[in-house]
Amino acid sequence: MTQASDNERRVLINGQWRQANQQSTFRPTDPSNHQSIDQVFPVSAWSDCDEALNAATDAARQMRSIPAETIAKFLECYADKIEEAKDNLVDAAYRETGLAKSPRLADVELPRTSNQLRAAAAACRSGSWALPTIDTKAGIRSSYEALGPVCVFGPNNFPFAFGSVSGGDFAAAIAAGNPVIGKANSSHPETTRLFAQLALAAAEETGMPKAIVQLIYRTDHADGEKLVSDARLGATGYTGSRHAGLALKAAADKAGKPIYLELSSVNPVVITPGALQERGEEIVGDFITSVLMGTGQFCTNPGLVLLIKDESSEAFITSVKDRFANSASGTLLSPSVASNLATSIKTLCDFGAELLVGGGEPEAGRCAYANTLLTTSGTSFLGNPEGFQTEAFGNASLVVVADDVEQLCKTISQLEGNLTGCIYSHTDGSEDAACEQIASELTPKVGRILNDKMPTGVAVSSAMNHGGPYPATGHPGFTAVGVPGSLLRFAKLTSYDNIRPNRLPDLLQDENPRSAWRLIDGTWTTEAIS
Amino acid sequence: MTQASDNERRVLINGQWRQANQQSTFRPTDPSNHQSIDQVFPVSAWSDCDEALNAATDAARQMRSIPAETIAKFLECYADKIEEAKDNLVDAAYRETGLAKSPRLADVELPRTSNQLRAAAAACRSGSWALPTIDTKAGIRSSYEALGPVCVFGPNNFPFAFGSVSGGDFAAAIAAGNPVIGKANSSHPETTRLFAQLALAAAEETGMPKAIVQLIYRTDHADGEKLVSDARLGATGYTGSRHAGLALKAAADKAGKPIYLELSSVNPVVITPGALQERGEEIVGDFITSVLMGTGQFCTNPGLVLLIKDESSEAFITSVKDRFANSASGTLLSPSVASNLATSIKTLCDFGAELLVGGGEPEAGRCAYANTLLTTSGTSFLGNPEGFQTEAFGNASLVVVADDVEQLCKTISQLEGNLTGCIYSHTDGSEDAACEQIASELTPKVGRILNDKMPTGVAVSSAMNHGGPYPATGHPGFTAVGVPGSLLRFAKLTSYDNIRPNRLPDLLQDENPRSAWRLIDGTWTTEAIS
Repeated sequence: MTQASDNERRVLINGQWRQANQQSTFRPTDPSNHQSIDQVFPVSAWSDCDEALNAATDAARQMRSIPAETIAKFLECYADKIEEAKDNLVDAAYRETGLAKSPRLADVELPRTSNQLRAAAAACRSGSWALPTIDTKAGIRSSYEALGPVCVFGPNNFPFAFGSVSGGDFAAAIAAGNPVIGKANSSHPETTRLFAQLALAAAEETGMPKAIVQLIYRTDHADGEKLVSDARLGATGYTGSRHAGLALKAAADKAGKPIYLELSSVNPVVITPGALQERGEEIVGDFITSVLMGTGQFCTNPGLVLLIKDESSEAFITSVKDRFANSASGTLLSPSVASNLATSIKTLCDFGAELLVGGGEPEAGRCAYANTLLTTSGTSFLGNPEGFQTEAFGNASLVVVADDVEQLCKTISQLEGNLTGCIYSHTDGSEDAACEQIASELTPKVGRILNDKMPTGVAVSSAMNHGGPYPATGHPGFTAVGVPGSLLRFAKLTSYDNIRPNRLPDLLQDENPRSAWRLIDGTWTTEAIS
Repeated sequence: MTQASDNERRVLINGQWRQANQQSTFRPTDPSNHQSIDQVFPVSAWSDCDEALNAATDAARQMRSIPAETIAKFLECYADKIEEAKDNLVDAAYRETGLAKSPRLADVELPRTSNQLRAAAAACRSGSWALPTIDTKAGIRSSYEALGPVCVFGPNNFPFAFGSVSGGDFAAAIAAGNPVIGKANSSHPETTRLFAQLALAAAEETGMPKAIVQLIYRTDHADGEKLVSDARLGATGYTGSRHAGLALKAAADKAGKPIYLELSSVNPVVITPGALQERGEEIVGDFITSVLMGTGQFCTNPGLVLLIKDESSEAFITSVKDRFANSASGTLLSPSVASNLATSIKTLCDFGAELLVGGGEPEAGRCAYANTLLTTSGTSFLGNPEGFQTEAFGNASLVVVADDVEQLCKTISQLEGNLTGCIYSHTDGSEDAACEQIASELTPKVGRILNDKMPTGVAVSSAMNHGGPYPATGHPGFTAVGVPGSLLRFAKLTSYDNIRPNRLPDLLQDENPRSAWRLIDGTWTTEAIS
């Protein structure tokens, strides 16, 4: 146990910014110059987690009797504060992540973040997300309701919109009625700290329990596993690497604690010869934008392109290769992202993928890696499907060229679960039979299927599924993005059987005071029961 | 590998009743006389599972293009056949389980089973269960859809309504579009075989893939774990003992395969002094009926009664004790149920529970155990909460007498997750403040909360939650009983992003050909999109 020095950042536990009970410290890196940032963050000992869990347990209990309207106001107040603090947040995030200040951070991710919080507030206010269901004959009523404290592990690639105390998991957990213990991503702890300050201020202003938001920067692996499996916890939301995520999953599963993971995904994109003959350069443009945007560091980055051998496919590859070579490579989020990318590319090459452009070692002087395009044949892929699905997170993609539709389908049949799958085809419908065959293989493998559109750009929509079969996520039935669906992850189903009317939660009372959509005897309605 | 003899029962794989590839054999016991039944069932080797998985994979693929209407007709045809075969089914189940032919098997469980299948058929036909969601502005549409082959492990206590090829899991899995591999419960394999015959006949009559229903009687533990974690499988439904269920859960979790478990539950029933003063004898009657019905072998059997020390509580205990002593003890399902019950009672006594009536060894000559009532104080319970939550499955219950409401609430706070929790109180509302305190502790611990009503009797209702926090089940968000909710367990969420209209599944087409309830831009409606 080391002694905290004065210039160290403090953890937020039970409404207090206090010195951490720490095991050690760490400093984040500025990826634009590969230099350590002059801020020191604690690696918390278990006692910090333990105190946070106790405070969250009390907060969860209090929240059960706080009106949804108050929780909604907290989320809206927080959204306002985020917009007011925009410049500070953007500066901090740029320094820690190297993501472009504009448009990315200031004009895309920040508005997305505040809008997400407001959408969650609206869902919380109405209560329709909870699928209130009433069987008047049986005298039974049910709805989803708060589950208990939620721990959120945010990823490195969205410091705002997926941030542990600002992003979609946070918004969903709070809107479902649960306090959040945020575990900052170690690559942008200062950004996360600024959000926690704003959230705490919003909690104070709206009269919420202060432990509605707590913040720890890092723990060791054993304490992380202890945290997600603790009896006091309701559930965990995790977005990040597969390796770390699976270790947390094993611990949570063993304790019977729900954990929602967003892990790896190569996001296969099928492009038919017809599509390329019809609009090849347009598709090259779509692809380049999608794969190089944010230096390819999106969960839905198109890391695997599936083509059928012919001239138009050759032309596509050549064109992408040229565009990769002639595009500046962007800044990556951290030294480890750069080194992991180099390792993955080397692995794919070792398996026999042909390097068309890029590759090699990470750049010196900043976190960056050459835009990289690899290719292999359908036959080679089928010889080592697991190996060729190695995720290369960043500005890289692997093109698999199949002999024909049959081999393409066989390739798809060997894919793991993915977040997304795309099919580009000729607009005249001439390829519909082949596309039906392809879709019937691809759809069961993915959470979201797209036509004629790249997978990056995860709209915050009621119909979004940012999820998918394992190992893209831990459960094929839940989405991490979109309201109302994302709230259901942090809720328990409760049935009220023969409960006296004065004891029913407001969502299930005859009067329907919140005008929620309710399924009453098989009919969805916002009406009261008369 | 032993050679199958001619009088051995056959497994149902891919539409064929064929000799099992077997490791060994077993014979069920007639619990009314403790004698082995003269029918021999195979313990399948892995190759049976492997073939079943392959056939189910093909069936799942075919089912994706079979109209929901056809699947619904299969379920209805099967329900009809079950009613026609009632006498045979009741005879077989009585012989294997000892459950009363009437009313239990013939007049309660059998109609429940066929009605459940018809309710699932109706849900399948409309598609509303799949929560079709359309965001017209974003061009994204989503719904739940078939997940892949489902393996169902049925429990011993409901040979019809929870049977692996006849019960709620079967109905839900099929209605969601998935074929089922049934793993019969070893205590009633012949009953299960009769159901599989009827299901196969219904599949043939309605033109469904024959592998929509397959049947294996038993495997060894390792093969069971291999089965639930196989890449070809979509999910597993399991109802049974905690020990076996947790072993399957560990295997499935590791492979990222959803598994829905219904494990143990003691179903706490709180009865206030006011309730007992007002209507003590009526509540004694409710309790006796609930705890001794079906010889106490219900998942929701009231195994834990929580009282507050006073004269009316003493009177309740005395009255129950007398009624237990004067009621014949029913037949238990199997020799292992009887011996496990004796072991649990002994364990509770070893922890310090006081035996008021019953106890001892199982009866000789049939599977039975004396009606057993135990008691302990709140203080003792709090000294060993885990021990005193030992489930005693059968005609037994433990009464905990707390000093006051505070201690009662503290006791509840130490409970594990349960399927149900009940609160009986005075009808004049004079105890509402105490009940609010009790409910705030109890509700988060249970899947279904009841007032003034015992927990047995799990209505097949849209608002039912037959589920609850771990270890009652494996996930707090799902119900095993009730339509439409139970179908969601066997479904994956799929988002259709920018999908060409002719490629959308019928549920998501503008025309809404099935008149399903759909959430369109935040409004639930059965209308088409014009």
